[in-house]
Amino acid sequence: MSSIGIVSPQTMYFAQPLQLQSGASLQDYMLMYETYGTLNADRSNAVLVCHALNASHHVAGVYADEPKSTGWWDNMVGPGKPLDTDKFFVIGVNNLGSCFGSTGPMHTNPATGKPYGASFPVVTVEDWVSAQARLADELGITQFAAVMGGSLGGMQALAWSIMFPERLRHCVVIASTAKLSAQNIAFNDVARQAILSDPDYCGGDFYAHGVVPKNGLRVARMVGHITYLSNDDMAEKFGRKLRDAAQTGDYKFGFGIDFEIESYLRYQGDKFSEYFDANTYLLITKALDYFDPARAHGGDLAKALSGTKAKFFLASFSTDWRFSPERSREIVEALVCNRRQVTYAEIDAPHGHDAFLLEDPRYMNMVRAYYGQVWHDITAGAPAAAQNTAVRQGAKETA
Amino acid sequence: MSSIGIVSPQTMYFAQPLQLQSGASLQDYMLMYETYGTLNADRSNAVLVCHALNASHHVAGVYADEPKSTGWWDNMVGPGKPLDTDKFFVIGVNNLGSCFGSTGPMHTNPATGKPYGASFPVVTVEDWVSAQARLADELGITQFAAVMGGSLGGMQALAWSIMFPERLRHCVVIASTAKLSAQNIAFNDVARQAILSDPDYCGGDFYAHGVVPKNGLRVARMVGHITYLSNDDMAEKFGRKLRDAAQTGDYKFGFGIDFEIESYLRYQGDKFSEYFDANTYLLITKALDYFDPARAHGGDLAKALSGTKAKFFLASFSTDWRFSPERSREIVEALVCNRRQVTYAEIDAPHGHDAFLLEDPRYMNMVRAYYGQVWHDITAGAPAAAQNTAVRQGAKETA
Repeated sequence: MSSIGIVSPQTMYFAQPLQLQSGASLQDYMLMYETYGTLNADRSNAVLVCHALNASHHVAGVYADEPKSTGWWDNMVGPGKPLDTDKFFVIGVNNLGSCFGSTGPMHTNPATGKPYGASFPVVTVEDWVSAQARLADELGITQFAAVMGGSLGGMQALAWSIMFPERLRHCVVIASTAKLSAQNIAFNDVARQAILSDPDYCGGDFYAHGVVPKNGLRVARMVGHITYLSNDDMAEKFGRKLRDAAQTGDYKFGFGIDFEIESYLRYQGDKFSEYFDANTYLLITKALDYFDPARAHGGDLAKALSGTKAKFFLASFSTDWRFSPERSREIVEALVCNRRQVTYAEIDAPHGHDAFLLEDPRYMNMVRAYYGQVWHDITAGAPAAAQNTAVRQGAKETA
Repeated sequence: MSSIGIVSPQTMYFAQPLQLQSGASLQDYMLMYETYGTLNADRSNAVLVCHALNASHHVAGVYADEPKSTGWWDNMVGPGKPLDTDKFFVIGVNNLGSCFGSTGPMHTNPATGKPYGASFPVVTVEDWVSAQARLADELGITQFAAVMGGSLGGMQALAWSIMFPERLRHCVVIASTAKLSAQNIAFNDVARQAILSDPDYCGGDFYAHGVVPKNGLRVARMVGHITYLSNDDMAEKFGRKLRDAAQTGDYKFGFGIDFEIESYLRYQGDKFSEYFDANTYLLITKALDYFDPARAHGGDLAKALSGTKAKFFLASFSTDWRFSPERSREIVEALVCNRRQVTYAEIDAPHGHDAFLLEDPRYMNMVRAYYGQVWHDITAGAPAAAQNTAVRQGAKETA
């Protein structure tokens, strides 16, 4: 198992307008993407990896001269890794509206000659999938071996299975959900309020003013980050430890930092506010809130998934309270109603929502094993016998 | 069962400085308080009710000409109510640093002639209890029949039992904790960051500038409010309901309000920001974070409670994820270690942390029954036989 090594992104320009779910359209746009591994002769070994809020096309490997630029899922994707680039041609695409290279609110609106800012159209998960599908067309990929994602990335994978049932053989959905809960939406909205009410947001046109709504972004990130960590993990890692544990006199009796957790979260917030675009944050949280494929079917998720043809792998993590295992079970049930082949793993892991990015060995092995099946599927030709598997790793197994 | 009716607050001025845990002191100060019922001849029937973040001395009843001014625990306190003012003399005190009448950051610092602002000393739960004890002295009350509070109010009651073991016969601690978790602290700190980074905070001296950091307060309140509601309750009450459900075209594809939960939280935030003082918010959340009586005993809560003499009643609510039942159980265990008489009720209730303010009948009846014991205790003279009771209401009972 080694890393991919040096990689570099590519861009593709799309001159044709993209119709969006809102009714608006993007006149033209650019997508930034990266690929790892080699596309085989019959173009059957491509795997699309979809990213979540704070991630991009840069899934794995490093950039030349930037040793700290390791891709966000480098532990998952690479030679000999669970998603093995010695076998699969892996593609990461930066979504529209994001801030890592694809067309977004910081780019020039051709209609006005100024940055889109807050006038960048509100995009949905389905809009992203439409754009990704166009890229697949340009790359000559009619069918992906798999489409995979975690969290918001998993929502995209799910949308792929609904929108383009024939274009993916396998759908890999990690730590995800078929729709956000009221509590999820609430946290997103608080984060948006923090950004929108930052005077440096300037109604979205902060680019022109040479400022950045850092305070709003910082608070937004702190709120979000709390939801990514499990209560147990926070207690374990931080508890009530003081940041300056060596100090006598203990509490500082001021409004600065006392506790390690405060220091950690403020650091996370500060770091994030230095690179993440505020308009992007608003756009991506709205996409999160809006996603609800069952909505067009009177709330019936089984109905929404009735046209899917892919085989599915889902995984959830026990201490994830943002997208709890219950959310994944709802998807699994709806798929089973439709007699889809489903493999489902519920991992007992302490790391909350963030666990999907970490290296729990049981999780990694399950994904590795599943991609072994995917490989067999695309190389052997004959579909595997219909078999549903639900496994709880770390507790008793149930078939 | 009827309401107390018209009440009016009183104030008491304290000319002697109050030494604070931080080492600072308050030169002089005023406490605003209310009383309900009648103090009996031997001054044995007084019950002190301690308030939490967004509450005050105005526990029950209404103010003349303000029909909507019902006290925050009016369902608990009054003639024939669980804390029966036909029997008990109930006192509510506004804590120092709060913004409902007692000396706080909006008042004049005698040393400077200007409002304290951010220079109001950071006060702790123990400081509040010290001030409350002085008020009790002035009212001639050497021993309370009970000291009671919910959430942060419960932490004060707990502190009373430790600091003044002889001065209360019963300690009633609802939906509370012996210390905040990392997650609790994290949410408080995010809220503080929202306020501190609001330009209208003006370093705490917004009074002089004729502004109020409304945006920061609003975001702070929204964050806090999410933690008071249970996930289930939010799903039940709000789910993914759109605010303008009648509209066609559904989603608005903008950054305004789509969902009912967004509308509700923003309304809560706006309302709060109109009356709550920003410096008070910072002070009270620091007091919440700092409270940790076990800290002085190497983290041993049983040791911290070893000097207590009161009898205890604790209650927690199953869906409270801010101060979960586990927090109350820790206190109960530590008390049982010390052979304290403890009555503990874990109520299966859907309303999260806010449940302690609501009228779950099982909860109300448990409190009513307990105050029946308190009444018996102070009127009969002889202590009741030692008996610990732990009850889960709504599930099986365990003795």
